[in-house]
Amino acid sequence: MTSVPAYTATSATEPLVPGVVERRAVGPRDVRVDIRWAGICHSDIHTVRGDWGPVPYPLTVGHEIAGVVAEVGSEVTRHRVGDRVGVGCMVDSCRECENCRAGREQYCLNGFTDTYNGKDRDGRVTQGGYATGIVVDEHFVLRIPEAIPFEKAAPLLCAGITTYSPLRRWNAGPGRKVAVVGLGGLGHLAVKIAHALGAEVTVLSQSPRKREDGLRFGADHYHATSDPATFERLANSFDLIVNTVSAPLDLDAYLGLLSFGGTIVSVGAPPEAVPVTLFTLFENQRSFAGSKIGSIAETQEMLDFCAEHGIAPEVEIIPAEKINEAWERVLSSDVRYRFVIDASTFAAA
Amino acid sequence: MTSVPAYTATSATEPLVPGVVERRAVGPRDVRVDIRWAGICHSDIHTVRGDWGPVPYPLTVGHEIAGVVAEVGSEVTRHRVGDRVGVGCMVDSCRECENCRAGREQYCLNGFTDTYNGKDRDGRVTQGGYATGIVVDEHFVLRIPEAIPFEKAAPLLCAGITTYSPLRRWNAGPGRKVAVVGLGGLGHLAVKIAHALGAEVTVLSQSPRKREDGLRFGADHYHATSDPATFERLANSFDLIVNTVSAPLDLDAYLGLLSFGGTIVSVGAPPEAVPVTLFTLFENQRSFAGSKIGSIAETQEMLDFCAEHGIAPEVEIIPAEKINEAWERVLSSDVRYRFVIDASTFAAA
Repeated sequence: MTSVPAYTATSATEPLVPGVVERRAVGPRDVRVDIRWAGICHSDIHTVRGDWGPVPYPLTVGHEIAGVVAEVGSEVTRHRVGDRVGVGCMVDSCRECENCRAGREQYCLNGFTDTYNGKDRDGRVTQGGYATGIVVDEHFVLRIPEAIPFEKAAPLLCAGITTYSPLRRWNAGPGRKVAVVGLGGLGHLAVKIAHALGAEVTVLSQSPRKREDGLRFGADHYHATSDPATFERLANSFDLIVNTVSAPLDLDAYLGLLSFGGTIVSVGAPPEAVPVTLFTLFENQRSFAGSKIGSIAETQEMLDFCAEHGIAPEVEIIPAEKINEAWERVLSSDVRYRFVIDASTFAAA
Repeated sequence: MTSVPAYTATSATEPLVPGVVERRAVGPRDVRVDIRWAGICHSDIHTVRGDWGPVPYPLTVGHEIAGVVAEVGSEVTRHRVGDRVGVGCMVDSCRECENCRAGREQYCLNGFTDTYNGKDRDGRVTQGGYATGIVVDEHFVLRIPEAIPFEKAAPLLCAGITTYSPLRRWNAGPGRKVAVVGLGGLGHLAVKIAHALGAEVTVLSQSPRKREDGLRFGADHYHATSDPATFERLANSFDLIVNTVSAPLDLDAYLGLLSFGGTIVSVGAPPEAVPVTLFTLFENQRSFAGSKIGSIAETQEMLDFCAEHGIAPEVEIIPAEKINEAWERVLSSDVRYRFVIDASTFAAA
C-alpha cells in the first residue's frame, strides 16, 4: 500500500478537501501511473452529491486520467515505464461473461469495476483520479498517442469515448445527417468526432450563444432549441441524434426530428424514467437507444482516431484548489468545455 | 358511384349493422375488387369505439382484404380481371415526399390514406373492407400467390406485414435469438415468420396455456411472463424482441432481456406514453423502436415469402352476422388466432 495526495469528498454537501488515498502494491499485471492531468466530469458531482445512490465517504472521484507509467508488474506486456497513458471509467471487469469475452467490458454482465466508488477485487472501495497516482490492471490502461496534447487527453477517456462509441455504432459518416443535442463537455467532442467521421453535423443547443463555437468545432448547422420553429423546420431530417443532455428532455419532440430508420441515442441520463409516445416512435421506424462509454479496444481506437484527425477537447486548466469553484461552474453550465486539473497541484495542497 | 353491401358502425357503442358503402367509379389507374374475405383486426374495434379519436359515423372498417379483380381502369398494368389480390391498411399516399419516392408509403410525410376513416382524394371518408367490393389505385393492390389459401390470405395484409417488416429490418435470421411478446393475431404470425427466417424463436406469453400452439407455430421456446423467474432466467439473452401487445407493458423488464446491441420493437401501442428508464437502456447499448405496417413492395415480398414457406395465419371463418360476437371475443382475447369474415355473407344480410 502507498498513500498518495488527493482531493477528497467527505460528505454530499461539503467542499472537497486535500487528503490522501491508498493505492495497492503493484501486482504482476498492474501498472502504476503518475497522474499528470485529471478531467472533471459531471458524473463526479452526481456521485458525490448522492444523486445516484449512497456513497461511502471519504471518496476521491475522477475518471478522466492522463499520466505517465511509473512502474509495471512482472507480467505486464502492454505498457512500459515512461509511456503516456490514460485511465477512464473502468479499472476492472469479470473477464468471464459473454460481454467481457467479446471485448465489451463496459457491458460486463457482472458489472465492471468503476474507477471510483466501485468495489475492487480486494473488496475495498475504488478511489479515482483527483490524486497524484493510481494502480490499475494493464488491460484497463490506454496508450495516449503523442499527437494528442497531454493536458487535453484526459477528457477523451470519458467524454470522448462516450460519444465516439454511439457515433460509430450508428454509422455517423459521409452522407449521414447527425445532430448533437447539448454543446457541453460531451457535446463539443461529439461535434468534432462526427465531423471528422464525415457526417453532416447539426448542433441543437438551448440558446444561440454558442453558435460560433459550434461552427468552429466542425458543425455545418446550429439551431437553438429554445425556438419552437426549430422542431418544425428540422422535422424528419436526421439519421442520428446524439443526446448529451442529462436533464429530462421532451423526447417526443426530438424523436420527430428523425428521418426513416433514425435513432436518437442518449448518453446522459436523468434518474427518472422518460416518457415515450409510441405513435411518434412508429413513424419512420424510429429508435430510442442508450449507450454507455465504450470498450477498452474502442477507447484505444478513439484515441488513435483523435490523434490522426487532430481532435482534442477545449480545456480550462485549473489547480486543485479551484476544484470546488469549477464544480459550481459545471453545475451552472459555465464551462468551455472541460475542466482539467493539473495533478502536480495535489501534492502541493 | 356504386353502392355495395357492407357491415357498418353507426356509433361508438352500438353493434355493427348491415348497410351499404359507396365506391367511386373505376378511374384510369383504379382496380375494382370483389371482396371474398375480410380479416378482423383489433384496430377496427379501437377505431369504431373512438379510442384513437373522433369518428364520422356511419363508418365501415376492415383493412385485411382478399378478393378477385373485377374491373381495371384503362391505364392499369399491374393487375388483370380475375387475379387474386389483397388490400391492406393503405389505399393511397402523396407519392411526392421523400419517403413515398423511396417506396416507403407507410411513412408518407404527408400521411398515407387509411383504408378506412382516411380522407380520400375526393375529400370523402374512406370506407373499409367489411363489404363486398372496393375500388383502389392499382399501386396499393397486392398480388396473392396461389400457394396461400385464399381464406387465410387477408390477415397477412395487416398482421403479417406488421410483424414481417421489423423482423426483416432488425435481421431476424440464422444465429439470432428473437422473442415474440404476445401470441395473438400478430404474435402467431411473427412466430411463424421468424421461424421461417431461420431465427431461434421464443414466445413470451402471459400464461402457459398457449404453449402447444406456440411450439406448433415454430417457436423453439415458450415462457410465461406471469412467472417473475422468466425475467431473471432470460436476462440479457435476445437480439430482438417484437412486442405485439398494445396494452401498457413493463418495458424496463423486457429491455432487461436484450443482449448486446439488442432492440425491442413495438408494433402495438397504448395511446399513453410509455416510461423508459435510461439506465436500463444504457446497458448492452439497447434500443427501443417502433414500426408501422410495411411498404407496398415489402408487403408483396412478405406475401411471396409466406407462399414460399407455407406460412398462413390460423383463422376462424365467420359469417357477417357473427361480427359483433367476434369483436367481443377479440376484446377478451378469445380468438385463435384471427377472425376472417366470408364476404359473400354481406350481400345476404
